[in-house]
Amino acid sequence: MSLKGKAVIAQGGGGTAVINQSLVGAVLEAKKSSDITAVYGAIGGVEGIVNQDFIDLSLETDQNLEDVAKTPSQALYTTRVKPDREYCQRILEVFKLHDVRYFFYIGGNDSSDTVRIINEHAQEEGYDFVAIHIPKTIDNDLVINDHTPGFGSAARYVSSVFMGLNLDNIALKGVHIAMVMGRNAGFLTASAALARKFPNDGPHLIYLPERTLNIDSFLKDVKEVYDREKRCIIAMSEGVKNEKGEPLLTDLVDDIEVDAHGNVQLSGSGLLGDTIAELIRKKAGIKKVRVDTLGYPQRNYVGATSDTDALEAREVGQKAVHFALNGQKSGSVVINRIADYDVDYSLVPLEEIGGKTKLMPDYFINEAGNDITEEFIKYARPLVGKDFPSPARLLAPRIAKK
Amino acid sequence: MSLKGKAVIAQGGGGTAVINQSLVGAVLEAKKSSDITAVYGAIGGVEGIVNQDFIDLSLETDQNLEDVAKTPSQALYTTRVKPDREYCQRILEVFKLHDVRYFFYIGGNDSSDTVRIINEHAQEEGYDFVAIHIPKTIDNDLVINDHTPGFGSAARYVSSVFMGLNLDNIALKGVHIAMVMGRNAGFLTASAALARKFPNDGPHLIYLPERTLNIDSFLKDVKEVYDREKRCIIAMSEGVKNEKGEPLLTDLVDDIEVDAHGNVQLSGSGLLGDTIAELIRKKAGIKKVRVDTLGYPQRNYVGATSDTDALEAREVGQKAVHFALNGQKSGSVVINRIADYDVDYSLVPLEEIGGKTKLMPDYFINEAGNDITEEFIKYARPLVGKDFPSPARLLAPRIAKK
Repeated sequence: MSLKGKAVIAQGGGGTAVINQSLVGAVLEAKKSSDITAVYGAIGGVEGIVNQDFIDLSLETDQNLEDVAKTPSQALYTTRVKPDREYCQRILEVFKLHDVRYFFYIGGNDSSDTVRIINEHAQEEGYDFVAIHIPKTIDNDLVINDHTPGFGSAARYVSSVFMGLNLDNIALKGVHIAMVMGRNAGFLTASAALARKFPNDGPHLIYLPERTLNIDSFLKDVKEVYDREKRCIIAMSEGVKNEKGEPLLTDLVDDIEVDAHGNVQLSGSGLLGDTIAELIRKKAGIKKVRVDTLGYPQRNYVGATSDTDALEAREVGQKAVHFALNGQKSGSVVINRIADYDVDYSLVPLEEIGGKTKLMPDYFINEAGNDITEEFIKYARPLVGKDFPSPARLLAPRIAKK
Repeated sequence: MSLKGKAVIAQGGGGTAVINQSLVGAVLEAKKSSDITAVYGAIGGVEGIVNQDFIDLSLETDQNLEDVAKTPSQALYTTRVKPDREYCQRILEVFKLHDVRYFFYIGGNDSSDTVRIINEHAQEEGYDFVAIHIPKTIDNDLVINDHTPGFGSAARYVSSVFMGLNLDNIALKGVHIAMVMGRNAGFLTASAALARKFPNDGPHLIYLPERTLNIDSFLKDVKEVYDREKRCIIAMSEGVKNEKGEPLLTDLVDDIEVDAHGNVQLSGSGLLGDTIAELIRKKAGIKKVRVDTLGYPQRNYVGATSDTDALEAREVGQKAVHFALNGQKSGSVVINRIADYDVDYSLVPLEEIGGKTKLMPDYFINEAGNDITEEFIKYARPLVGKDFPSPARLLAPRIAKK
């Protein structure tokens, strides 16, 4: 007995380079179904649903959908609103008003939680309804998932940046530190290591939010690399913690932006990077210290999309619709690694994803807590896609001095 | 009567994505000549010459040279040393010691000046010698040149970043400001405008070092765009000047790094961007203000090379050798635009390039000094290369509210 009605699709949280692949994957698949009578896009995430700001995605041309799929950041716009139970109730009312029977929400673990609450309301009211969460996040921090759509492209951008910084640093020497996004999970910072090709390539040191940062051992690490190589590249997560387990930044600023989810706003300031650079200048006695804060391009850069990531993002959108049309009432689509390298997809209960954060496992981090392991490279390398850049060096012999 | 002897090639100043195309273009061309008895690469610019740190580039394989050509940043390393007359004399002594008769120096206007001084010493001493400057700079600030190798790729990176920031800003709203490299010339900042496709795409405001920044009219501009669009993207050059003609940054920091050329170190700090973001929050009353400082990836990012830029960088290297072997004793290779779009190359006297800085002409800047003109778009568009990204938007109609 099939469920007939409209579908609503929306996008939440921050963008990724491939988030519209998931949108388009779901829309094209939904358009094929006779059970889904129309495919609505909500403009601005859950806010768009409450305001009935819908567009009729059934009327997009296939070519425009394919062009949108290749475009980073939410084509349906987004919101930072985190709905409470009452807000979710209002969402359900709108769904009932428009006879929406299928809801697909593309987002991170907060979005997954929103889907769960809306679904609970529907169940309580006996409203026949299918609610599916489609994963995305550059942070790669959704539990159960081997990795998340959006991470591979962000990792490709970050590692490409470090590849360039490394080449620059070989040519010019000195210390170069770059701050990478990541509140709690260090996956994106760790992906800087994919920039390495030759044995002395940077990043030489990698600091993750999963380990506390002791300033003295940090400065010792930097001096050691600098004395050996005459240069040093450091990848540091913006979420690095002090020994009290607080973000380093909380020690440094008076006046910190906090978003509606109660999270400290770590991005959008060069302060942490600048402060650490100054620390190295003053306390390690190294004059030439450069710093970059990689910032928002990590999630929206247009030219570093991983083909693997794009394909998987497309497929999680398609699979969400498959699961919905094959009798699943709710769940979150999950990516499983089944070969080196291939994936398949399954659906897990929403409560297993929502509100939880996956961190880097211990076997991805070295003993000293200042680098990643080879295991991480094996894990992350397939995700950044094919045609990954491979810098070359001159290899000609030296000429004898006269 | 041909001049027989060795060639030395070196790279100076900051890197670009295509600086090794020029190296490889010159090396491969020089290897074909029977007059050039060996091709030496100096490791670390002019410092490498003085220290006789040479490698024998004649012994590189063609394949490795081609791989190096595609790799950003100086494969021969670089130096920030600005040689005085005495230093140039020491360079000439080394050249005489090794029977170097051809010198090719890839760099900006400072490097061009170095070539000029070495050449003057050679002439004074009657040493038969050919000295050619090969242009490069992401700043696009060499006079006479229509544009410089390295600029097109940096402009592609910058405009790609703004394309992503614009997509992010459409989805999330608010003000987003991004600081772009450029001490005196605004070409790279202006290239942010290439990110525009749809009429209301950002950057909505562009501030260049060629115009002074009045804080009050700046805040008025931002509010005006924000009130109209509910969002605003700002491209600002790190070299923007206050009304006394000083960099804004000099008003803000006590302790400014100054490099050996007497230039204030504008990059490597998020301070200026953070300060301007705070100004908008406090004085324009807009809460959601994000900021990025694009930093060093502008000159060394591995994934945004313009094919046009790469080809021209290769050709200025080749042409330098052609000019040298065809009787020219000294000069700087210049790119001339001869069609829409094609270029040819000529050689101009070194003193016409050295120490001079090309700025954005008035017809590239709008009356209000807060944007560029269509003339600039026509000028810059061919330089960022083919297959330039083109973001798409959903176009489906709204659904009536119930």
